[in-house]
Amino acid sequence: MDRYNFAAGPAALPSPVLEAAKAGLSNWKGSGQSVMEIPFTGDEFAEIHQEALSSLRLLLDIPSDYHILFLQGGAYGQFSMLPMNLLRGKDRADYVVTGHWSRRAADEARKYCSVNIAASGSASRYTDIPDWADWSLDPQAAYCHITTNETADGVQFSALPDTGPVPLVADVTSDFLTQPVDIKLFGALYASAQKNAGTAGLTVVIIKERLLGQPLPITPAVFDYTRLAKNASKVNTPPVWSVFIAGLMFKWIQSEGGLEEMAVRNRRKAAMLYEVIDESGLYRCAVAEKVRSSVNVCFHLPDQDLENAFLFSAQQRGLLNLKGHSASGGIRASFYNAVSEEAVAALVVFMRDFAAENSRASYYYVRDSNG
Amino acid sequence: MDRYNFAAGPAALPSPVLEAAKAGLSNWKGSGQSVMEIPFTGDEFAEIHQEALSSLRLLLDIPSDYHILFLQGGAYGQFSMLPMNLLRGKDRADYVVTGHWSRRAADEARKYCSVNIAASGSASRYTDIPDWADWSLDPQAAYCHITTNETADGVQFSALPDTGPVPLVADVTSDFLTQPVDIKLFGALYASAQKNAGTAGLTVVIIKERLLGQPLPITPAVFDYTRLAKNASKVNTPPVWSVFIAGLMFKWIQSEGGLEEMAVRNRRKAAMLYEVIDESGLYRCAVAEKVRSSVNVCFHLPDQDLENAFLFSAQQRGLLNLKGHSASGGIRASFYNAVSEEAVAALVVFMRDFAAENSRASYYYVRDSNG
Repeated sequence: MDRYNFAAGPAALPSPVLEAAKAGLSNWKGSGQSVMEIPFTGDEFAEIHQEALSSLRLLLDIPSDYHILFLQGGAYGQFSMLPMNLLRGKDRADYVVTGHWSRRAADEARKYCSVNIAASGSASRYTDIPDWADWSLDPQAAYCHITTNETADGVQFSALPDTGPVPLVADVTSDFLTQPVDIKLFGALYASAQKNAGTAGLTVVIIKERLLGQPLPITPAVFDYTRLAKNASKVNTPPVWSVFIAGLMFKWIQSEGGLEEMAVRNRRKAAMLYEVIDESGLYRCAVAEKVRSSVNVCFHLPDQDLENAFLFSAQQRGLLNLKGHSASGGIRASFYNAVSEEAVAALVVFMRDFAAENSRASYYYVRDSNG
Repeated sequence: MDRYNFAAGPAALPSPVLEAAKAGLSNWKGSGQSVMEIPFTGDEFAEIHQEALSSLRLLLDIPSDYHILFLQGGAYGQFSMLPMNLLRGKDRADYVVTGHWSRRAADEARKYCSVNIAASGSASRYTDIPDWADWSLDPQAAYCHITTNETADGVQFSALPDTGPVPLVADVTSDFLTQPVDIKLFGALYASAQKNAGTAGLTVVIIKERLLGQPLPITPAVFDYTRLAKNASKVNTPPVWSVFIAGLMFKWIQSEGGLEEMAVRNRRKAAMLYEVIDESGLYRCAVAEKVRSSVNVCFHLPDQDLENAFLFSAQQRGLLNLKGHSASGGIRASFYNAVSEEAVAALVVFMRDFAAENSRASYYYVRDSNG
């Protein structure tokens, strides 16, 4: 039986990356050591690190006045490090809350500054994103933070907002490298690696040079962007293996046709799934059509019993890790770059079968709508 | 040619661990996924995580009122997180400075509290550790911090100090799991993994329950020990692969005879090297005999040219990564658990050969001592 992994992160990796990873566990480039055993100050790691940086700069066409930092601690760690590094003498920041993770980011920022919620999807229960023309931006804000794709809610910005002179800062963890983006529109963006850039334990920060230089005095040395930029991210031992895997991922994306091709595939994959959801009568996706995520498709079945039956049957068919985020419940299918169209097709076939076998479910909706 | 890795970290891993790691890149326990691809909230990772915890608790005989936390950010990250989490309403902490890393730890702590240098090896240029009876401990200190082994300086505590009611907190990164320790003597101890516990990207913190509960308001969520302890270290995605490798290391140590056996081997390995240093006339180890490190043997040759020749010839003989830390210079041979006695024997043979071939070097010492 073929098995397909729809996990939200850590998530599926491409077979060629796993094969190359195996080579990294042996005699790496004749050094007599595995990649996990090489000193981070030596030539072997310098090459791995430099290649990962170059590949990423090429993939995203990152301008020369942006630094790429390779850190630890996950995107959640950055929720604290952003205000520590980016307030630059100001005492406030704008946050746009569009779901679970942007809410957490705002909560963390309150430890270090005044937070202005410039816009919130709470009125729609995070099934829509307020039009940015209606945002209440604070011109005195040090930056404006958004989460481009909400992993738990299945909501994704379809276009970037214009925040004027206030630098746009974005958590791009779940749609990082799934489509082309114009880096010049951001002051900073960041992503933890375990979705589209390899394995957990690495966080990528891309930041404009002119935002550096004014960390808060309480900023930990290993999370001081300025110091990290000066030291090529090597303030202390970097997560060598995770950097290696990220480099393999960057090269794999390039070899598959780059971000344009990833975007085409990801749109196609998501369209297949939203189609079966909308036609089924059994599955419900509450997210407004224009902000439906192309990477995390979140939906519900009429009740918990049916959702459990769905998850059980899917697992039996080799369709793995479809359970929704604990904060949102329901079902979630994550379609990062390494999830093939074949995998999505298998999921679609299963979902049609399951809907046909559970046609009585339409009953539930009637009951629901009658209260 | 056999090759031996004497790197200070990332460092050599045992072959059985590398073999088991390879299995982790394939179909892990029939799950259809590699360990890098499994959700951190699922059963597969729960088992990996729990086994690593149990193995470590067994190895170190960790009492039940101590939590084990698996974090990111390295020991250097903990230099900030310690005061954030452990001040508990106090405004000061004691630091004992015995070399490069304890100095850095004290520097970071000054961002959050008043630091009392209770003792310093600076008068001996960090070649000795002041007797703890002479330390100027502050009874109002929230904790007293030591670095049990200085990786860059080759200095190691031969016995633990008695800090009375002030909790002893220790960076044990480089001698973690190289010998038995009595956990009950510590309030907290921590180690980054890339020396004796696997691969970079994981930091282990072992902390007494009663020290939890009073983090500073500025403590980042993912570094809040109290929150981490409540959430089994899973406040956000843990470094899944590094936890897996650490678990393999813990089991390997147990299978080799545990910490008593590691201590015997490590003492034997270090004794072999210090013997050739002391007998040679060419090599100089400045560290006082009673505090010589059993894991990082640091020494010099008479001049930089000879040190370069030594490093070049060693490399030719397959003896890798012997260059000293950039802050200390000279030569450093690191003998963590995975470095075999065979590897140390090969180094000893080479060092005797090199000394014989460079006997003129004794001339340098005569010149040196005459000014």
